[in-house]
Amino acid sequence: MSKQFDVLVIGGGPGGYVAAIRAAQLGFSVACCESNPYADPKGEPRLGGTCLNVGCIPSKALLHTSHLFEEAGHAFAAQGIQVSAPKIDVPTMIGRKTAVVTQLTSGIKGLFKKNKVTQLNGHGSFVGQGGAGWQVKVGDEVVEAKQVIVATGSKARHLPGIAVDQKIVLDNEGALEQQSVPKKLAIIGAGVIGLEMGSVWRRLGSEVTILEASPDFLAAADQDVAKEALKLFTKQGLNIQMGVKLGETKVSKKGVSIAYTDKDGKEQKLDAERLIVSVGRVPNTDGLNAEKIGLKLNERGQIEVDGHCRTNLPGVWAVGDVVSGPMLAHKAMEEAVMVAELMAGQAGHCNFDTIPWVIYTSPEIAWVGKTEQQLKADGVAYKAGKIPFLANGRALGMGDPTGFVKMLACAKTDRILGVHIIGPNASELIAEAVVTMEFGGASEDLARICHAHPTLSEAVHEAALACDKRPLHF
Amino acid sequence: MSKQFDVLVIGGGPGGYVAAIRAAQLGFSVACCESNPYADPKGEPRLGGTCLNVGCIPSKALLHTSHLFEEAGHAFAAQGIQVSAPKIDVPTMIGRKTAVVTQLTSGIKGLFKKNKVTQLNGHGSFVGQGGAGWQVKVGDEVVEAKQVIVATGSKARHLPGIAVDQKIVLDNEGALEQQSVPKKLAIIGAGVIGLEMGSVWRRLGSEVTILEASPDFLAAADQDVAKEALKLFTKQGLNIQMGVKLGETKVSKKGVSIAYTDKDGKEQKLDAERLIVSVGRVPNTDGLNAEKIGLKLNERGQIEVDGHCRTNLPGVWAVGDVVSGPMLAHKAMEEAVMVAELMAGQAGHCNFDTIPWVIYTSPEIAWVGKTEQQLKADGVAYKAGKIPFLANGRALGMGDPTGFVKMLACAKTDRILGVHIIGPNASELIAEAVVTMEFGGASEDLARICHAHPTLSEAVHEAALACDKRPLHF
Repeated sequence: MSKQFDVLVIGGGPGGYVAAIRAAQLGFSVACCESNPYADPKGEPRLGGTCLNVGCIPSKALLHTSHLFEEAGHAFAAQGIQVSAPKIDVPTMIGRKTAVVTQLTSGIKGLFKKNKVTQLNGHGSFVGQGGAGWQVKVGDEVVEAKQVIVATGSKARHLPGIAVDQKIVLDNEGALEQQSVPKKLAIIGAGVIGLEMGSVWRRLGSEVTILEASPDFLAAADQDVAKEALKLFTKQGLNIQMGVKLGETKVSKKGVSIAYTDKDGKEQKLDAERLIVSVGRVPNTDGLNAEKIGLKLNERGQIEVDGHCRTNLPGVWAVGDVVSGPMLAHKAMEEAVMVAELMAGQAGHCNFDTIPWVIYTSPEIAWVGKTEQQLKADGVAYKAGKIPFLANGRALGMGDPTGFVKMLACAKTDRILGVHIIGPNASELIAEAVVTMEFGGASEDLARICHAHPTLSEAVHEAALACDKRPLHF
Repeated sequence: MSKQFDVLVIGGGPGGYVAAIRAAQLGFSVACCESNPYADPKGEPRLGGTCLNVGCIPSKALLHTSHLFEEAGHAFAAQGIQVSAPKIDVPTMIGRKTAVVTQLTSGIKGLFKKNKVTQLNGHGSFVGQGGAGWQVKVGDEVVEAKQVIVATGSKARHLPGIAVDQKIVLDNEGALEQQSVPKKLAIIGAGVIGLEMGSVWRRLGSEVTILEASPDFLAAADQDVAKEALKLFTKQGLNIQMGVKLGETKVSKKGVSIAYTDKDGKEQKLDAERLIVSVGRVPNTDGLNAEKIGLKLNERGQIEVDGHCRTNLPGVWAVGDVVSGPMLAHKAMEEAVMVAELMAGQAGHCNFDTIPWVIYTSPEIAWVGKTEQQLKADGVAYKAGKIPFLANGRALGMGDPTGFVKMLACAKTDRILGVHIIGPNASELIAEAVVTMEFGGASEDLARICHAHPTLSEAVHEAALACDKRPLHF
């Protein structure tokens, strides 16, 4: 007889493992299947998905190390710290990154045990309805589950004619496994991954050129932030070319040669030792057998879901990168919890308007809610408060007074509509903005809340005061 | 004729300068007097008070530098960053600190100009009522103001028989101006200043011993946090002796020799090159002429005020370290804004229950609201959620998974009563806890709010989930 579960989750990334844990907490018998071993030495499937294995976590480990490397080379002397010019031992850096990843992925294994989630090794593929609900082939066996949550995630989009070999031509996976610093590094795509990886390798000594087809830098971000970011990244030494048209890319054993037309229409050629292709990600629906069972995809290849992550099939849900919305781990986790709670008859809900975005460059970039250009396009009357970190004592103490906090509030109700931060620790500072927005708070609310001194969060406080044109420290 | 103002603020520290700026914003004609030049090269009075000149800001600058120094010596190798053993050039470190202080204190001068606050140089001393309201002598002239805000701050408490010379025996001022690393450093008092300064000099190579009379370490903090802190600081190499009884201290040109009885009743002797005395601070009321005009002080020497910072005299207010409550810059600023708004007929208010506390050691310590021991003493039924940073991906990526977040919520209503953090960036993480508590939020509110991944703030999120016994990542 087939193994039977109340819930089968297909995919062990942040959407999948959180859905499995939450469903198990709510009393369901739950299995979660995963087939990708990533870098597991025994080749066993690893939990954690892209995020833990080849995404958020390893990239943050490398960003941390390379940030310290940069500090040692450029910020120590002015503070009186005397060291020799720093050298990077790349294999050791990568080894530590791998150890962090291994610790966290084994941690998820432990959480499955604690919460009594059954881990199944193998790719999940729908067979059809039958038995207890849905039959899904996982590896060699068929599993039956009353409800199925598809959380198969996404994979790097590659470009036609540029084969990714993870040696010369890399995607996010290869970019995290390099064993030496390329002298010249080309990156196609100036999105989050391109900027983060470009920052890592530039700090470690690479000459980095980023080619981006779009004329608009960080189009999803508030354009004030995007403008400041482009200025700062360029000053740091990232050569960012916007509005380029890619021509032919030749790959040899020694590197790549990329022909392109720059924004002024001039023919250019970029030679580099290695190339990172970071031009977005595509949903993973291969091998799901979606068509066979009639699981509806949209024109972008994503599984079509409603606001509650219900697919067109009864008892089949989908969350995370495989559905529409931003490809962010915490968005997937929010959906995962919602689905588990809806399955249990609870009022599961996901507020897509207050999902924060983060880019872990230096300075970091984080935002929540509407950008100024969105408010203008929507014809919403708003007021803005903007405070530079130059006016913040903690930022000065840290020697990092770059960027600003910008708050946007409704001109009529004062309700906060968006908060945009570029600056030190933006990823952590955004939390109080999200919380305030979830409470439907006004800029005056934040303005009247005590903020510890000296902290970077005081810049958020001052931005709130600035919405009412009464900043105290600017 | 005397200079006349609507409002005179006595003292240019965080309480004073913020009161002056806010009052000016509200349309009053405002003057603020300050007599302390601190380290000004021309000997001119400097704005910013203890906090900017010899407190929060310079200490954070030194904590930042010494933290990087510690990272270079102890965390770089494991990450593959190769540098020589770091050496510290103390004068350069102190010079940078001084530059940061100068930038910020001149910044306040600029804010006074922008907000049209008149800066008066000189000590403020009450003459009496008369003319437009109160007459106050500032330096050689008498100023008249309808209302006066006393914001004279505090100064380091010294010990009888141990004269502070700022060379061998130091208080907070001298501790921030040392031009070399003492081989052995003694500290009397294991409070915030003792721990922060002890951390700075230990990281730079001092052998640090802290003597504390109280048997309870960090008595104001949640005792879970205090216990963890004592364990971590001791492991770092701070020799912290609690429950000691000080005997005679002999000071020579070469150092100090401190006789004391340890907690087990044994006679001990501590020899050190230098000594920092950090046994609390006393309110600055000298020279105010308080007695003459009948301004009431309490038995602790603080100016007596009601919950709105009104003194017993009409038109005389007092804020900050010179009144009761925690001696925190942001508490002074809150009171300052409240007083200015009350003077303008607005509903000024200060919520003393949601003022965050921060200690900038490594790991940092921050909290807001009630401790577990307070709730027990008050007989309040509560639930607790506690999450170690070991379960946090960002902390692991940073190589700093120490400490935890502990949340306390009402057992009946789920309202958050206290949040206690010891760990990386605790000072910034506390902000969302303060905001939630100001909104009267429940642990479930925070549990249902999306937190960016990977961030340290996810540990706050998980602590909220843990209050309901359903953490996802622990």
